[in-house]
Amino acid sequence: MPSAAVLIIGDEILSGKFRDENSPWLATRLRSIGVDLKRVLTIPDDIDVIARSVAELSAAFDHVFTTGGVGPTHDDLTMAGVSRAFGVRLVRHPTLEALLRGHLGDRANDAALRMAEVPEGAVLWEGPGLRFPQVVMRNVLIFPGVPALLRLKFDAVAHRFSGRVVLGERLHTTAAESDIADLLTEAQDRFPDVAIGSYPKFDSKPYTVTLTLDSREPGPLAACLAWLRARLPEQIPAPFDQSAI
Amino acid sequence: MPSAAVLIIGDEILSGKFRDENSPWLATRLRSIGVDLKRVLTIPDDIDVIARSVAELSAAFDHVFTTGGVGPTHDDLTMAGVSRAFGVRLVRHPTLEALLRGHLGDRANDAALRMAEVPEGAVLWEGPGLRFPQVVMRNVLIFPGVPALLRLKFDAVAHRFSGRVVLGERLHTTAAESDIADLLTEAQDRFPDVAIGSYPKFDSKPYTVTLTLDSREPGPLAACLAWLRARLPEQIPAPFDQSAI
Repeated sequence: MPSAAVLIIGDEILSGKFRDENSPWLATRLRSIGVDLKRVLTIPDDIDVIARSVAELSAAFDHVFTTGGVGPTHDDLTMAGVSRAFGVRLVRHPTLEALLRGHLGDRANDAALRMAEVPEGAVLWEGPGLRFPQVVMRNVLIFPGVPALLRLKFDAVAHRFSGRVVLGERLHTTAAESDIADLLTEAQDRFPDVAIGSYPKFDSKPYTVTLTLDSREPGPLAACLAWLRARLPEQIPAPFDQSAI
Repeated sequence: MPSAAVLIIGDEILSGKFRDENSPWLATRLRSIGVDLKRVLTIPDDIDVIARSVAELSAAFDHVFTTGGVGPTHDDLTMAGVSRAFGVRLVRHPTLEALLRGHLGDRANDAALRMAEVPEGAVLWEGPGLRFPQVVMRNVLIFPGVPALLRLKFDAVAHRFSGRVVLGERLHTTAAESDIADLLTEAQDRFPDVAIGSYPKFDSKPYTVTLTLDSREPGPLAACLAWLRARLPEQIPAPFDQSAI
């Protein structure tokens, strides 16, 4: 199944000035299209760190999605960092230059045209609703940091890397985690195709634990669910307040 | 100045089931106590990945804060991962065992007592309001994933690693980023002790750009602010909607 990493580039996230809205959204969207998100890494606006991170993630996962650091100012270093990751030059792409000139007219100064620079060898993906195409360098998709723009672009190209969707089930109990730990270990051993997670909620009354069962295999998932339903003590329906889950 | 990395351990974040509330909070808190957050990395519940990530981050930064993966169930692998990172055994700590037995009484079964296991050589930090002390392995502080518990523990021990606080200033303009890019590059070159960030907001009317100036040096910060105030076109007071900043 396709694996993915998200690379968040931006001092503003690390310094707490802005909250990263992109990685939670991408986590949910990637799950919905069957791509396994394996890493989310947030790094500063530093060319060397961008280059090293892109090189490592690109080698380790099927897809890498970068967000942030694209734009006309001195702190926009993503394109330069991706270029360095692959040992290629930063070049001005004629299609992007034409788009920018058409869009900006007289205001297409050198700074604005920096937004037409891409790693040499990068390709452009067109998609519905995209005024500017998606820049793709090998398995790295370079997204803007502005959430509305990222979402527009992601949804326009997501069909190109969809996988087989993960199915999920949930169970809830008022039993303490430590009292069901052995049962869960046995379930995990019996059903290796199912990923079982256990998430306590301490600020609820009564204290509750949510179990999540994830699998791409409907048969083992149903069998694991039935096995746990027959054995899990103190089961309850889904608690009213599931806001965090 | 002290540097830090945050390591978020949890399949539930990567699969989009829970939103990570801890790293935004830690980013804000670390800035307020003068610690430079340099990385946030989210990884799955996998011992080898935990071990490799802890080893790398521990070597690269002054402090590492892990969140999640501590508890009694099969998916709680942080203590084992940190042990592997440093090549030590996982051992039951007598102080933690006594605390758990005192707290749980008859319910202190083997699963519950897994919560007394720490990497060999780990130390315990007491702090105000802490029923269970903070586990620290070399420069790695191991926090729970539950936000309320993490915050309680962090605030109880934060005085131990505070640094010199970063000062910040802001400017706002309705000028396009590409029209002020050269000015910002010159400002950044003139004031290397100040980190200048430029953040456009496209969904505001009028379109605005917020500039952030960060420095630990009051003199250069004031000089940079004055220099930009004298030159930045189309300056405006802080826009009403600064929710994202």
